[in-house]
Amino acid sequence: MKKLINAVDTVLAESLDGFAAAHADIVTLGTDRLFVRRKTLKPGKVALLSGGGSGHEPLHAGFVGHGMLDAACPGQVFTSPTPDQMAAAVAAIDQGKGTLFIVKNYEGDVMNFEMAADMTETPVKLVVVDDDVAVEKSTYSIGRRGVAGTMIVERIVGAAAEQGAALDEAQALGKDVNARTRSMGVALTSCTVPAAGKPTFQLAEDEMEMGVGIHGEPGRRRVKLESADAIAAEMMGAILDDLAPKSGSEAILLVNGFGGTPSMELYLMCNAANKILAGRGVKPIRTLVGSYVTSLEMAGCSLTVSLVDDKLAKLWDSPVHTAALRWGM
Amino acid sequence: MKKLINAVDTVLAESLDGFAAAHADIVTLGTDRLFVRRKTLKPGKVALLSGGGSGHEPLHAGFVGHGMLDAACPGQVFTSPTPDQMAAAVAAIDQGKGTLFIVKNYEGDVMNFEMAADMTETPVKLVVVDDDVAVEKSTYSIGRRGVAGTMIVERIVGAAAEQGAALDEAQALGKDVNARTRSMGVALTSCTVPAAGKPTFQLAEDEMEMGVGIHGEPGRRRVKLESADAIAAEMMGAILDDLAPKSGSEAILLVNGFGGTPSMELYLMCNAANKILAGRGVKPIRTLVGSYVTSLEMAGCSLTVSLVDDKLAKLWDSPVHTAALRWGM
Repeated sequence: MKKLINAVDTVLAESLDGFAAAHADIVTLGTDRLFVRRKTLKPGKVALLSGGGSGHEPLHAGFVGHGMLDAACPGQVFTSPTPDQMAAAVAAIDQGKGTLFIVKNYEGDVMNFEMAADMTETPVKLVVVDDDVAVEKSTYSIGRRGVAGTMIVERIVGAAAEQGAALDEAQALGKDVNARTRSMGVALTSCTVPAAGKPTFQLAEDEMEMGVGIHGEPGRRRVKLESADAIAAEMMGAILDDLAPKSGSEAILLVNGFGGTPSMELYLMCNAANKILAGRGVKPIRTLVGSYVTSLEMAGCSLTVSLVDDKLAKLWDSPVHTAALRWGM
Repeated sequence: MKKLINAVDTVLAESLDGFAAAHADIVTLGTDRLFVRRKTLKPGKVALLSGGGSGHEPLHAGFVGHGMLDAACPGQVFTSPTPDQMAAAVAAIDQGKGTLFIVKNYEGDVMNFEMAADMTETPVKLVVVDDDVAVEKSTYSIGRRGVAGTMIVERIVGAAAEQGAALDEAQALGKDVNARTRSMGVALTSCTVPAAGKPTFQLAEDEMEMGVGIHGEPGRRRVKLESADAIAAEMMGAILDDLAPKSGSEAILLVNGFGGTPSMELYLMCNAANKILAGRGVKPIRTLVGSYVTSLEMAGCSLTVSLVDDKLAKLWDSPVHTAALRWGM
């Protein structure tokens, strides 16, 4: 295992310390590193909490800040955080208007966030994100998995909460954005969880995993490596068949690297996706290309399409200031 | 070779098309994709041009925009752009106040930018960046190589140009920032140039290349993989011995991934670097952690320290709006 680490059992703690120091203007660490909190909370705002296994950075801690999350709970790599972490975060961020949990649809995460909701005094609502069209159920999920679309939900709901949305409104908006958002991914290589010390799965030199999950879970099928255009056609086909957008629809396009994919390839995939969108009459009015929801050093990418109207586009564009997403301030 | 591409000879063109489409609010492509230009030029401003081989994205095209570069010329992967490209870019961006070339210190780049300077009518000055302390000369360079510190020069000089600095002032500032900036890198894996189809170099499962260049050129020595703290100590030691900062100095710290390094490891390296800076009495007043100056999918990272005073910190903080660096707008 080749990693820039000191010891397997201190990877997360040292990484969080580095993160908190680098972004001390935006975030602060909770006691015992149970959560990463927005440094300056906004009084009277509905609080937004997310979290999940580590190894998907910048998701979620990289999205804590103005216009997005109030806190994120980091679990060990690819392992759900505990209900205690979430309860501690709620106690630190809740402003008396309730807290919305934004949770990726994995059994462990959903169970732990639901337990945390039962432990808190404040009103808590959940939005469960399940944007991955690759498979209908998977190794760690009942129903579709939550993947890169989660950041779009976090951004748009975060914008609305910043502008004063109530807890019910924020939850309804999150469900709406989730329903408008679909993703699918492909892996060219595996990834290695530090504690495991060896690759999560094996791919031959000429193989790829089509429809892979963000923990390296199996997707639709393992096939020979294809051209970027063919890969984009399969992924965008699945996404658009599921979304069934009207011609003339407007969308946010997210081309997401899994951690080990060069920028050149992501932009090439963006070009391939744009051709397919044009063929379906869908206009990408905003495009994000980068490694935002990763699987450690996995090579590969996912494509996400989120259909937006003017109201959602305006929320998307409103000021955001987090470690990984920033504009307007 | 496992890459998300269609054909080796169209990688750059397709990637540039995707880049220009994704960031159509910021940039526009020159004819025949000779350069990437800032969409809205600022009348009367000294123009800033950079460029170099592709494969280091987001450097340089990702830094074109308000408060940074006016254009960037992309060569083929790890290959200098041609003087014709630079001359075409100058013709497109020069505002009658002259153009400053910011060039990484590699023989091919310096030669081609100097030829381009001779081809233009407008006054042209050069800043050659040579921030890499690993080796005194290298495969493609006479003298030290220009690496991740280049983006710090581009940002600070870009800020000054945006605020009205004259050509001479911009050049002097660029030389000053370069003199205050030192970097060193380490590779855990190689990278594969699409046209070559095989890794640039070979590293055993337990080896790393200490002092690697951003094209995979040899560094100081090939050694067994060490701990993150030991790696950071060697790199920061070389940087700080060379810079010899007074205790109490303030700095920008850049922890730069080479393209295949997980965010967790970069923040862990940031934490390791912070401990060393603290031991030397140097305060990182600004920290940037991410994959900004890459070598395709190479795993590894570089550390950069740039000593700044209040004036330079203020320029750093001023508004910037590019694909890869954005704040204040």
